Amino acid sequence: MSTEPTKIILSEDEMPRQWYNIQADLPTPMPPPVGLDGTPIGPDALAQVFPMNLIEQEVSTERWIDIPDEVLGILKLWRPSPLYRARRLEAALGTPAKIYYKNEGVSPAGSHKPNTAVAQAWYNREFGIKYLTTETGAGQWGSALAMSCKLIGIECKVFMVRISFDQKPFRKIMMKTWGAECYPSPSMETAIGRKMLEEDPDTPGSLAIAISEAIEQAVERDDTRYALGSVLNHVMLHQTIIGLEARKQFEKIGRYPDIVIGCAGGGSNFAGISFPFICDKIHGKEVKVIATEPEACPTLTRGPYVYDSGDVAKMTPLLPMHSLGHRFIPPAIHAGGLRYHGMAPLVSHVKRIGLIEATALPQTECYEAALLFAHTEGFIPAPETSHAIAQTIREAKQAKEEGKEKVILMNWSGHGLMDLQGYDAYMSGKISDYALPEEMLQRSLASLEGHPEPPGL
Amino acid sequence: MSTEPTKIILSEDEMPRQWYNIQADLPTPMPPPVGLDGTPIGPDALAQVFPMNLIEQEVSTERWIDIPDEVLGILKLWRPSPLYRARRLEAALGTPAKIYYKNEGVSPAGSHKPNTAVAQAWYNREFGIKYLTTETGAGQWGSALAMSCKLIGIECKVFMVRISFDQKPFRKIMMKTWGAECYPSPSMETAIGRKMLEEDPDTPGSLAIAISEAIEQAVERDDTRYALGSVLNHVMLHQTIIGLEARKQFEKIGRYPDIVIGCAGGGSNFAGISFPFICDKIHGKEVKVIATEPEACPTLTRGPYVYDSGDVAKMTPLLPMHSLGHRFIPPAIHAGGLRYHGMAPLVSHVKRIGLIEATALPQTECYEAALLFAHTEGFIPAPETSHAIAQTIREAKQAKEEGKEKVILMNWSGHGLMDLQGYDAYMSGKISDYALPEEMLQRSLASLEGHPEPPGL
Repeated sequence: MSTEPTKIILSEDEMPRQWYNIQADLPTPMPPPVGLDGTPIGPDALAQVFPMNLIEQEVSTERWIDIPDEVLGILKLWRPSPLYRARRLEAALGTPAKIYYKNEGVSPAGSHKPNTAVAQAWYNREFGIKYLTTETGAGQWGSALAMSCKLIGIECKVFMVRISFDQKPFRKIMMKTWGAECYPSPSMETAIGRKMLEEDPDTPGSLAIAISEAIEQAVERDDTRYALGSVLNHVMLHQTIIGLEARKQFEKIGRYPDIVIGCAGGGSNFAGISFPFICDKIHGKEVKVIATEPEACPTLTRGPYVYDSGDVAKMTPLLPMHSLGHRFIPPAIHAGGLRYHGMAPLVSHVKRIGLIEATALPQTECYEAALLFAHTEGFIPAPETSHAIAQTIREAKQAKEEGKEKVILMNWSGHGLMDLQGYDAYMSGKISDYALPEEMLQRSLASLEGHPEPPGL
Repeated sequence: MSTEPTKIILSEDEMPRQWYNIQADLPTPMPPPVGLDGTPIGPDALAQVFPMNLIEQEVSTERWIDIPDEVLGILKLWRPSPLYRARRLEAALGTPAKIYYKNEGVSPAGSHKPNTAVAQAWYNREFGIKYLTTETGAGQWGSALAMSCKLIGIECKVFMVRISFDQKPFRKIMMKTWGAECYPSPSMETAIGRKMLEEDPDTPGSLAIAISEAIEQAVERDDTRYALGSVLNHVMLHQTIIGLEARKQFEKIGRYPDIVIGCAGGGSNFAGISFPFICDKIHGKEVKVIATEPEACPTLTRGPYVYDSGDVAKMTPLLPMHSLGHRFIPPAIHAGGLRYHGMAPLVSHVKRIGLIEATALPQTECYEAALLFAHTEGFIPAPETSHAIAQTIREAKQAKEEGKEKVILMNWSGHGLMDLQGYDAYMSGKISDYALPEEMLQRSLASLEGHPEPPGL
């Protein structure tokens, strides 16, 4: 028997006490957010939406930012998360590759999302905020924020993309169990929701619509702010605890990954696992970093790098990012968390400057990969996570062909226990693939007309 | 800040390599299983139902039994499980008690059940068995066995109590995801199932009926055996890894529990957490051990100690145990795993000889306790687990009244992410309490007529 354990564990004392801010290390700076006229947006313009302490983090270029003690204390309810060696998966693939996965499914909400939810709830409460509004796709983020608000002691209201609201009935009970209110989006609660329902009463909804609804309610009240589960710089920052832990865990076993893989919807779990390794790469280390998205929502692989709005009603500033257009409504794939038209500016930027690669995978390949994972490693992955697994399997097969002992690290962003209908549909042969037609993409990109262009490199 | 961590962790090297068999330490021996005529049943009589290697464990009085390497390897996918200090719950209660919980929800199936499922699948495969049949209540056991059979490489067929089959649709997808077949019980697949459906087409089913169906199918084929998720001695044995780990974890922090609490349905998670501590108690240590059951199915608190059958069709031998009668059909409470008419003979025996106490709690108190737990510690407990939490809260309040710094250990047997409908019903005011009427109990106990009586102490 090998002496390397199945799970590489850190003690609570070994937990990172600071988040890593990649903005300090970018070889070329990221363009600023701008208004519709192309003028850079200052922190004050965001003050109605976010508390000032988080806005400061959003624009900070400090390399290390302290994790508050109370936040750290709550994160210890499930962190540090284990780094697994997937030996049984390796054996099933007959690959010489060594596959490691960081299990973020161990949190009470079942995904990586609470890493930033707890922090955001804490900074809002410190700033005197009593209510947080938010949107959620698959429900991973909404339930993470519901839990975090309860643990921190403020109120939470969630707008959930309608297709997921219907597909995942248990997610709303979960949010209610943690004391939050949850509405299907578009809803009759907001002006933008009513407008979208008028245009198309049968719309499956989108994250962009739900964001508009949540922001609309946040700006109406002084004691209310909005929380976003991905995309923004401070969200990427809070998620770096994943990669920082993983890096320490690899140190413990005297290894370093050749390949780092994360699925990418808004970009947060991908940034979380990869940014600390990209930091090493910037400083000369050799490591291949891959963001994996669904063919049905190919933001990084087919969306241009543009200035676009984060939401459908253009309530957010224009962000420099890969985007399919803010009016893009993705097909109703089961990986609800990957159904976002844009991509975190920081993730888009590191893609643009060549620090990462991106791939787009069909849904059926991902479910097949998820089943193989469940049959070998036991844990049932979330549909989002299955994209990282499928890419990992591709790389492991490649390593087998090349006869190379590659070390692969993937972020296992969450479990699929709340997403079992998708598995049922797949096993019943009811899931087909959906590659975005070029014509649909062009129609959606038309919504970018009139936006300023990001500066060249 | 305290130096004691939130989670007390063992390394994989520190995992117990042997199970603890309490039969070696019982101050008075347990009566044997008997036939309807009162004659003790020998191992051979069970050979059609279980493989001989497990039957040997069932009757063994060896104190320590080696855990096979392959079983240990699979258990390491989630074990050792963390021992948590529930500081936030303590604070909410304002108690001087120190509350610890052993989190068995970290397994891929979400409960303690895989501890024995993996072992049983392994012993069956070693014996040449290709198919396992079983019953399941809430679905915790069925999904644990489905996963374990897949990991070990044999087939699995599950009869699921109809009320749970309907209440918990995701559990059957989970079993299917791990490759098992799942039928609602009573089903048309077996003679006893067809008979029960004829008597009452609307029956919610019971574990006793589902067991009969699974055994009926197991005895029909040479390459098929039956697996039981609780009640039997070898199941209690496999679960002792919980308490053995917990005892080591307490050693690490230099404490020992004053009170050990587990919920009890068939008895396996209770035995798992408590038997190693009862061993200490037999050898002079002072520790209070409490088994907690629902008022709606008060086996230990109101069922007499008798010889009764484990299933409704009397296919099992008569076991010496506390029982409400094998024809007892418990009300449809949400804690499906606690809806069993009998209680493990070993748990019944340690109750009878005064080594443990038992309490019966109303469902609403348990849901209230579960919500307080989720609001303070984050994790949402299974309805079964909520009984252990409610009893823990009673003890912590008692400690507060007495001003005593009691150390309380509870087994957090599983998470409730697959049981959220019960939470929804509770939060919507749709759950009421149900104390078993004396008249109903007497009617059910009539099914014991003609059974021999267990010998006196």
